[in-house]
Amino acid sequence: MNVLVINAGSSSLKYQLLNAISSDILAKGLAERIGQKDAQIVHVRNGDDPVYISSEMPDHKKAIAAVLSVLTSEEHGVISDMSQIDAVGHRVVHGGESFASSVLITPEVKRAIRSNFDLAPLHNPSNMTGIESCEESMPGVPQVAVFDTAFHQTMPSKAYMYALPYDLYERLGIRKYGFHGTSHSYVAKRAADILGQPFETLKIITCHLGNGASVAAVKDGKCVDTSMGLTPLAGLCMGTRCGDIDPAIVTFLMDKESMSTHEVDEMMNRKSGVSGISGVSSDFRDLYVAAGEGHKRASLALDMFKYHCRQFIGSYAAAMGGVDAVVFTAGVGENNSDIRLGSCEGLGYMGIQIDPYRNAAVKSREAIVSTDESRVKVLVVPTNEELAIAQETAVICGAKLKS
Amino acid sequence: MNVLVINAGSSSLKYQLLNAISSDILAKGLAERIGQKDAQIVHVRNGDDPVYISSEMPDHKKAIAAVLSVLTSEEHGVISDMSQIDAVGHRVVHGGESFASSVLITPEVKRAIRSNFDLAPLHNPSNMTGIESCEESMPGVPQVAVFDTAFHQTMPSKAYMYALPYDLYERLGIRKYGFHGTSHSYVAKRAADILGQPFETLKIITCHLGNGASVAAVKDGKCVDTSMGLTPLAGLCMGTRCGDIDPAIVTFLMDKESMSTHEVDEMMNRKSGVSGISGVSSDFRDLYVAAGEGHKRASLALDMFKYHCRQFIGSYAAAMGGVDAVVFTAGVGENNSDIRLGSCEGLGYMGIQIDPYRNAAVKSREAIVSTDESRVKVLVVPTNEELAIAQETAVICGAKLKS
Repeated sequence: MNVLVINAGSSSLKYQLLNAISSDILAKGLAERIGQKDAQIVHVRNGDDPVYISSEMPDHKKAIAAVLSVLTSEEHGVISDMSQIDAVGHRVVHGGESFASSVLITPEVKRAIRSNFDLAPLHNPSNMTGIESCEESMPGVPQVAVFDTAFHQTMPSKAYMYALPYDLYERLGIRKYGFHGTSHSYVAKRAADILGQPFETLKIITCHLGNGASVAAVKDGKCVDTSMGLTPLAGLCMGTRCGDIDPAIVTFLMDKESMSTHEVDEMMNRKSGVSGISGVSSDFRDLYVAAGEGHKRASLALDMFKYHCRQFIGSYAAAMGGVDAVVFTAGVGENNSDIRLGSCEGLGYMGIQIDPYRNAAVKSREAIVSTDESRVKVLVVPTNEELAIAQETAVICGAKLKS
Repeated sequence: MNVLVINAGSSSLKYQLLNAISSDILAKGLAERIGQKDAQIVHVRNGDDPVYISSEMPDHKKAIAAVLSVLTSEEHGVISDMSQIDAVGHRVVHGGESFASSVLITPEVKRAIRSNFDLAPLHNPSNMTGIESCEESMPGVPQVAVFDTAFHQTMPSKAYMYALPYDLYERLGIRKYGFHGTSHSYVAKRAADILGQPFETLKIITCHLGNGASVAAVKDGKCVDTSMGLTPLAGLCMGTRCGDIDPAIVTFLMDKESMSTHEVDEMMNRKSGVSGISGVSSDFRDLYVAAGEGHKRASLALDMFKYHCRQFIGSYAAAMGGVDAVVFTAGVGENNSDIRLGSCEGLGYMGIQIDPYRNAAVKSREAIVSTDESRVKVLVVPTNEELAIAQETAVICGAKLKS
């Protein structure tokens, strides 16, 4: 069953065509600079080098048409015609409280996604454009929405409520939603598989550490807490995002520096995190180079990131009454053994013992990196949000996947 | 050695006269509604009922004079004349980075306190008024400043820095300072005494749970992290304060509801916390009554408070690489056994076992409430900020206290 996975941004569109049953990727790519003169598609057929295809893409609908044309083209294609696409899976950032799982897109679903535009003004409208463009270009092909927030909808109210006036929740939907849900869900399930234990019986802490970073507490197969909040700004410090800070800093800065809400938002989202602290980069590889050369603020940024991870692991173990497995994923979590080591440092008192040699040897592959004696298992599980979206889509469309 | 302890607010002035060596309280009271027509002093001589003394107090200087007059009066006094006051200890909220301990007040110290007015605009100016009034009324008597922030100045940079652009720290002093330091320090030391172990070898988590609430991690006698931040708004949810929230909520609300910075600050400080969630009260006793009658939002508020405490205990154990003792103090922490129980629920995996019977029996007195087998000791230690301020003051003035 071939599923086209679409992740539509404001001026870009990531795609991947894969077989949801075998997990094989047929092709993937990115339509970029949509609406601009120099729009192009970067297309990668499985096993081949990327090709760059200039294409007129004044809008997302034309971009989808161009992608479909590439996928079926003689030169770069992987399928003979569009009938070989069985379903489309769309990444949708914010499902609000409307969606606790993936869903076949209907007019009603679209209304519900639109009703969450306010909660994700940068993402949901682009996601919707992607959905409508696919509907027009591929009539009759089932479209499925897979939400970043859905996995977190099982959180209890004590975890998702903010201690603000209650009517802000009722009137405006201000609560913790959480993000990266597809990734947290995917790697938590994979960890259970790797450990050979039922997902529904485990206490798992998943650390999705990429340029955006979040931690989730998954108990008995359900998310019970996560570090991102109403927006993806909250939680850990990240590449360029500040994570949790004293909320009074926002108003303090606005008053003191005459900043607008937009300016503060920009600062907290794009000029903060390890980038803001170090003044060097949001890329952890650059930070390690600088720290190695004695750059103190680069070291501080790395120390803070590890410290925040460690604190969330401690906090979520307390939330679940213990932990059986800690899982690291995403760019930093999969590749950076020092961040994993630092995030678990000193946690022997709660049964977490990383094996430093095993850990140092693992990059971007599934592995257990704790010692054999460690009561809590520590794992690396590369995330695969596209595969997870394809599988969810296939299931919604009636396919039976091996568990 | 008699020390007069002064806590000056904007229109009030709390005082306590005590013997710093014996810890005996001679008298205490509150000058209230300073600057208003109906100003009065509520005065309590040790062992007596409170007396209410109307007095003209157009300003703090007159209030200090009135307090001194009551303390030396025939009818309500406890000392024959002012020479029996050996020193004055002032609670000062914000010492910024200037003060890591208590200090004899000099013109230079006053300049430094003034330089921190921006960081505590509601508190430091009032505290300064109290200092200057005492200097005028009691020339020659040593005045000591005891800072709420001082104990937390040992935090490492990874704990006190926010992941914001670094220049905000350099230019504006935006970092975590922490508050309730006098209380955290006092109860942590008392806990070590009660356990009969050297303070400098213990990992202690202190939970100061009152209408304001904060948690601190104290390792080897030094604070290494605490939950309040640049301001006393951050951390746990409190009586009327929201604690940590996604900072994007601040700008979201301002845009969405056309709120000013002042209005959002007011909301986060005075209309949030367990009061905002429950819609019932900021007083935990009222919340228990309401929850007992089936009020769901009152139960939710209590659940959130306990959940936040538990998460901070987990987080700070991770920060210190384990914990030897958890200490509860302040109004809620000393008196409310259910909050203590809920804050430690499920923490057996890290060696914390409350004894439910012992715990239920303890109200406002020093006690160990964990089981004999519990690896981590859980204690109740009533805080005594006035005594701590008096003792600090006495030490600064050269007195030798028994340790």
